[in-house]
Amino acid sequence: MIQITIIGSGNVAQHLIKAFKKSEAVEIVQVFSRKKENLSAVIEFDKIIDDFADLKESDLYIIAVTDNAIAEVSAQLPFNNQLVAHTSGTASIETLDDKNRRGVFYPLQTFSKNKEIDFSVIPICVEAENTFDFRVLETAAKSISNSVFAINSEQRKALHVAAVFVNNFTNHLYQIGQEICEDHQVPFDILKPLIEETADKIKTLDPVDAQTGPAKRHDSITTDAHLAFIQNENQKNIYKILTQSIQDNGKKL
Amino acid sequence: MIQITIIGSGNVAQHLIKAFKKSEAVEIVQVFSRKKENLSAVIEFDKIIDDFADLKESDLYIIAVTDNAIAEVSAQLPFNNQLVAHTSGTASIETLDDKNRRGVFYPLQTFSKNKEIDFSVIPICVEAENTFDFRVLETAAKSISNSVFAINSEQRKALHVAAVFVNNFTNHLYQIGQEICEDHQVPFDILKPLIEETADKIKTLDPVDAQTGPAKRHDSITTDAHLAFIQNENQKNIYKILTQSIQDNGKKL
Repeated sequence: MIQITIIGSGNVAQHLIKAFKKSEAVEIVQVFSRKKENLSAVIEFDKIIDDFADLKESDLYIIAVTDNAIAEVSAQLPFNNQLVAHTSGTASIETLDDKNRRGVFYPLQTFSKNKEIDFSVIPICVEAENTFDFRVLETAAKSISNSVFAINSEQRKALHVAAVFVNNFTNHLYQIGQEICEDHQVPFDILKPLIEETADKIKTLDPVDAQTGPAKRHDSITTDAHLAFIQNENQKNIYKILTQSIQDNGKKL
Repeated sequence: MIQITIIGSGNVAQHLIKAFKKSEAVEIVQVFSRKKENLSAVIEFDKIIDDFADLKESDLYIIAVTDNAIAEVSAQLPFNNQLVAHTSGTASIETLDDKNRRGVFYPLQTFSKNKEIDFSVIPICVEAENTFDFRVLETAAKSISNSVFAINSEQRKALHVAAVFVNNFTNHLYQIGQEICEDHQVPFDILKPLIEETADKIKTLDPVDAQTGPAKRHDSITTDAHLAFIQNENQKNIYKILTQSIQDNGKKL
């Protein structure tokens, strides 16, 4: 049984608490929150503390706070040589104060407060400074997820950049698609099955093999017609650059 | 019972044949293919013809051929004043020869030959030159899909451009995500649940409300770090343009 203390009360902290509570391999010792009432819905009140002086001993302390606060919070911890991990996709493991043994416990997903999450399918990226600590983090991760990866800070940086492309930028393309529909009185709902199929396809196909469309076919009659159709300069620019990129990169992978 | 003849033997033709065969509101009269054997797996052999002179009377002739061939095929039909529709997302209704009554029957989805498709969830965009013909096309469409829309040629053009953004360009962002992962020895599989969640979210949220990430937060420390991390000039350029577009358009909708 791994004893875990969680520091933080935001989305990630709350989802972790809920997931660990269901796990038989983990016991939540305490949760730290500046405002105890933030957590009253997710954990027994007597486990919530708001003073670092009240921290009990644990095998693992998980700091689930915003990136900017990681360094400060980790420096405030009133002990040394314990295993302390943060949950950030971007912060390096060195962001943590080195008076403790450092680790990363990064669940790669977008968390929304009011949406229930099936943690078992969420990839957790784990990093530590030695094998023993790595095993503790890995065991904790595997107790809530079927998808656990050893990822160092450099790889995690790459993963976060890649996530910006496949999540943030993709969602922005959905927004542009919706704008084009609305500008021409077409319901955006018509495109939703296509969006779903696009995401679904790459479960079994490499993206480069799943690529279709006029850019891929070098069908300049259609791409020229599309560029003439698009009035918004920003959309036109994005259309040109992504069309060019598809044509330049089609054979690269 | 609507009697339908299908002209063509490609992906769209074959998926339509399979769907209409299951419908009780439609009877497939004949299917035209230059190579009869292309269709032997999907329709009774005696319904396949390879000579326009053998065409029987139908309520609706659906031309499911490549965009470039629509005009020629429609001109070759040996009759007048019948209802003839094409299945293209880009070709205008006027692409069809005007010796017949013209229509469009456009299923908006990416069709792969070897993947079974649940037609009932595929949106079909229907257009005609008069109300009677529209009803015929609409009835045929509703017999295989729960999602049928009246879309004129101008709207269909907008829809196709929007589809390029949400399908072709999105898939290309997946490819870039995969490239970044592979360049840093990270398994692309880690990102697949995030990709699925990104597509899933907009079923219930407008894309502009689903937008997250450093661009949206105007977190220039992170976006600068990402730009410094990305070595590929093309990826860097796409990162800059989409980040700027998210920041410029965040409040527009």
